[in-house]
Amino acid sequence: MTSRISRVVVTPVAFGDPPLLNVVGVHQPWALRAIVEVHTDSGLLGLGETYADEAHLDRLAAVAAAIPGVDPFDLASLRRVVVEVLGQETGGGGASFGGMLDVRSAVETVFSPFEVACLDLQGHETGRPVSEVLGGRVRDRVPFSGYLFYKWAGHPGAADDAWGEALTPDQVVAQARTMVDGWGFGSLKLKGGVFHPDQECEAIEALRDAFPDLPLRLDPNGAWTPTTSLEVAARLAGVIEYLEDPTPGIEGMAEVSAATDVPMATNMCVIAMEHLPPAIAQDAVQIVLSDHHLWGGLRRSQLLAGIAETWGLGLSMHSNSHLGVSLAAMTHLAAATPTLTYACDTHYPWKTQDLVKPGVLSFEGGSVAVPSTPGLGVELDRDMLATLHEQYLTCGVRRREDTVYMRSIQPDFTPNTSRW
Amino acid sequence: MTSRISRVVVTPVAFGDPPLLNVVGVHQPWALRAIVEVHTDSGLLGLGETYADEAHLDRLAAVAAAIPGVDPFDLASLRRVVVEVLGQETGGGGASFGGMLDVRSAVETVFSPFEVACLDLQGHETGRPVSEVLGGRVRDRVPFSGYLFYKWAGHPGAADDAWGEALTPDQVVAQARTMVDGWGFGSLKLKGGVFHPDQECEAIEALRDAFPDLPLRLDPNGAWTPTTSLEVAARLAGVIEYLEDPTPGIEGMAEVSAATDVPMATNMCVIAMEHLPPAIAQDAVQIVLSDHHLWGGLRRSQLLAGIAETWGLGLSMHSNSHLGVSLAAMTHLAAATPTLTYACDTHYPWKTQDLVKPGVLSFEGGSVAVPSTPGLGVELDRDMLATLHEQYLTCGVRRREDTVYMRSIQPDFTPNTSRW
Ligand SMILES: [Mg+2]
Ligand SMILES: [Mg+2]
Repeated sequence: MTSRISRVVVTPVAFGDPPLLNVVGVHQPWALRAIVEVHTDSGLLGLGETYADEAHLDRLAAVAAAIPGVDPFDLASLRRVVVEVLGQETGGGGASFGGMLDVRSAVETVFSPFEVACLDLQGHETGRPVSEVLGGRVRDRVPFSGYLFYKWAGHPGAADDAWGEALTPDQVVAQARTMVDGWGFGSLKLKGGVFHPDQECEAIEALRDAFPDLPLRLDPNGAWTPTTSLEVAARLAGVIEYLEDPTPGIEGMAEVSAATDVPMATNMCVIAMEHLPPAIAQDAVQIVLSDHHLWGGLRRSQLLAGIAETWGLGLSMHSNSHLGVSLAAMTHLAAATPTLTYACDTHYPWKTQDLVKPGVLSFEGGSVAVPSTPGLGVELDRDMLATLHEQYLTCGVRRREDTVYMRSIQPDFTPNTSRW
Repeated sequence: MTSRISRVVVTPVAFGDPPLLNVVGVHQPWALRAIVEVHTDSGLLGLGETYADEAHLDRLAAVAAAIPGVDPFDLASLRRVVVEVLGQETGGGGASFGGMLDVRSAVETVFSPFEVACLDLQGHETGRPVSEVLGGRVRDRVPFSGYLFYKWAGHPGAADDAWGEALTPDQVVAQARTMVDGWGFGSLKLKGGVFHPDQECEAIEALRDAFPDLPLRLDPNGAWTPTTSLEVAARLAGVIEYLEDPTPGIEGMAEVSAATDVPMATNMCVIAMEHLPPAIAQDAVQIVLSDHHLWGGLRRSQLLAGIAETWGLGLSMHSNSHLGVSLAAMTHLAAATPTLTYACDTHYPWKTQDLVKPGVLSFEGGSVAVPSTPGLGVELDRDMLATLHEQYLTCGVRRREDTVYMRSIQPDFTPNTSRW
C-alpha cells in the first residue's frame, strides 16, 4: 500500500540574528522561520522549512489543513491544492525578503516547504537520500561560500555579539578570517550596498590581499546605478568571481552586462520562471542564484538548473537566514545538480541555535557532506524546536522588516537602492 | 535495502509495417525496435523500448554490460555510465529516423530506454504508476491523434494490406474514417511531403469537409521552401491546428513564422536542448513535439516541457513506429505533463503485432487510460517477444532506410526536402 499524508504541523520559530547590514536596513534581533512537518498514515515524517512572516504562516496553515489524503509522490495534486487554497491571490507572496524582492504569486513560496517535506517522505519510503530521489548525486560534498556582512558590534541596547563590529575593510577581513578558520570556506561573498561603493571596493581589495586564492563576490543588492556598477566592475575586474545585482532590474543589469566582461549574477531580477525569457533575451545576467524556497521547491529548482544549462547560464545558490532543515534541502539539491558549480551562499554560520539534531550537517573545508541516510537525513530536536517556538511566541517579531528596524535606530534612514 | 541493477537484456524485434510514404521514401516491410529489460537484485523488472538500428544496438549492448550495480533511482550514475561507455563518440546518434534527422550525440537516444526502465522499476518499488513517479498525473486519459499516411495498397510483390491504397483525397478520407471509427481519434494528422503541396492541401480540405469538428495537422517533413510554406499556410489558415515542419531548419521556420499566424510546429529543427535557444530567439516555432526516445528519457522530456511552459511554447508529442512499451511510457509522460495540451502523435494503429500483454493500452475515444498499476503498467508477452525477435532475425532489415527501400522500387527517387 502506498502512503497518504495524514497530518501536517506548521511551527513558527525564532532564533537570534546579529545586526547584519544591507541595502534596506539591518537584520532584526530575531530571524523567523517556519518548520513544516508532514506525517503519513504509514507513520513516516517529512520536513520542510520556509519563511514565517504572518501572511505566509496564514497561507501555510490553510494548505496544511487541505493536503491530508494526498500521496507524497503526487506533487501535481499537492500543487493543485496549493493553487486552489490560495485562489486568485496575487502580490507580495508573503515571503520574508525585508522589502528587497517582490514575487507575483504566493504559489511557489507556499508550495516549496510541502514539496520538500514530500521529497523527504519519498526518501524515507524508498530508503534513499533526497539527492537520490532527485535523480542521483553528482558530488559527495557541497561547497558553500563564507557570507560576510557589514555589521554593528551588537544590537542597540544589547551586549556585543561574538562577531563584533565589521564596518571597515580590516574588520571585514577579520570576520572573513573567523569564517575561513572556523568553517574552511573556499570562497567569500560580501554583502554590500551599505557604504559608498569605493569603501566596499576597498573591503574587497583587502580581502583579495588577505586571501589571494579565494574567489570573491560582492552583492550590493541593486544599490548602484549602471554607471557606478560599471566603474566598480572595471575596478574589480580580475578580482571578483562575479558581481551580484549591482543595479536593479533586468534592463539595468543588461546595460551593465553589455559593457563589461565581469560576470553578472542575480537573485533579484530573475526570481521566477517568468523572468527568464526577458533576462535571457537581453543577456542581462550570466549567473542565476537559485533558491528552492522562492522558486517553488527542489523539482522546480532542477527545472531552473536545466534552463540555465541549456542557455549556458552559470548557476549558484541564494540564501536567507535559515536553519538545518533548509541547509539539508539545499545540500541535497546542490548535490543532485551537475551544473551548480559555484559554491552556494549560506547564512548558516550566523545562527546561534538550530532545531535539527547535531552531527549531520557539519562544515569541513567549507563544504557539507551530503547526508547518506534516507530522506533529508536530518531529524528534529524536539526540545530545541520547542525552545525556538517559545522564542517566536515571546520575541515580538512577526515579519521581517529590516527597514522598519533600522529606522527605529536611525530615523532618517532611506533604503538606498540605486542611490550611488 | 535499496535495489541495484543486476542484469540487462536487450532484444531487437521486428514487426510488419505498411508501405507508408514520406519525404525520404517509404517504410520498409519491417519496422525495428529494441526492448530493454532491466532486472534488479530485488527481483524487479523494468522495461524500455527504443530504436534498433545496428549501430544503436551496439551502443545499447555496451551500456547494458556496464550498468549492473547502479541504483535504479540514481539516474545521474546511469547517465555517467552512458557517457563513459559512448566516450567521445558523436554524430548520427545511431537512431532510426530514415535519414530525416541528425542528432549530434548518441547519449540521449541511448540513455532513454534505460532511464524509462529505471522509472518503471521506481514505480514497481514504490507501488506507484510511472506518472506518479514523475510527479503526479494531471489527466486520467491521454488523447492521441489519428496519424494518416499516403500509402500504397501493399508492399511491392506482397499482397495488399488491410488498409489498402491511400493516394487521393478520397482515399485519405477513407483511411481517416477507419482511424476515427476504430480508435475514436478526436484529431487527425496527415503525413505529407509526398505529393505536390496543392494535392496535399486538397487532402486536408477533404478531411475538413468529412470531419468538420476535428483539429487537423499537416506535416510534410520540411519538403517545402519558405515561400511554398507560406502559400500553404495562407490556404489552410483556419483549417489546420498547426503546420508541422513545412520547411527545413530554424532559419527557414523563422522566416515562415514571421509571416503567418498559422502556428508552426516541429520535431525536426528542434530535436535537442541545444536547438532551443536559437529557435526561441528567432521565434522559429510555436509548438515543439517532444519525444522521450530522442530527447533522453522522461525526465529530460519534463525539462523540455518546463522550458516550453516558461517561454509560452505549445507542446505536442512525436512518434515513430513503436510498440506497447513505448506507448505506455508516452502515456505516463503525457499524463504527468500539464502543458501537453495537444493530442499526441502515435503510429500505434499501424502495427499488427505487439509484445505487451493486451488489455491495458486500449484506445477509447481516441485516448488511452493512464495505467494505474505500479510502473509502466505493461507486462511482456514472452511468446510474442520471441516471435518478434525471430522476425528480427529472419527479416533481413538491420536499419531504417526509407530512401534505399524506395529506390529499390523507384530507382530515380530523390528525397525531396525543400523540392517544392
Ligand atoms: Mg543577492
Ligand atoms: Mg513531424
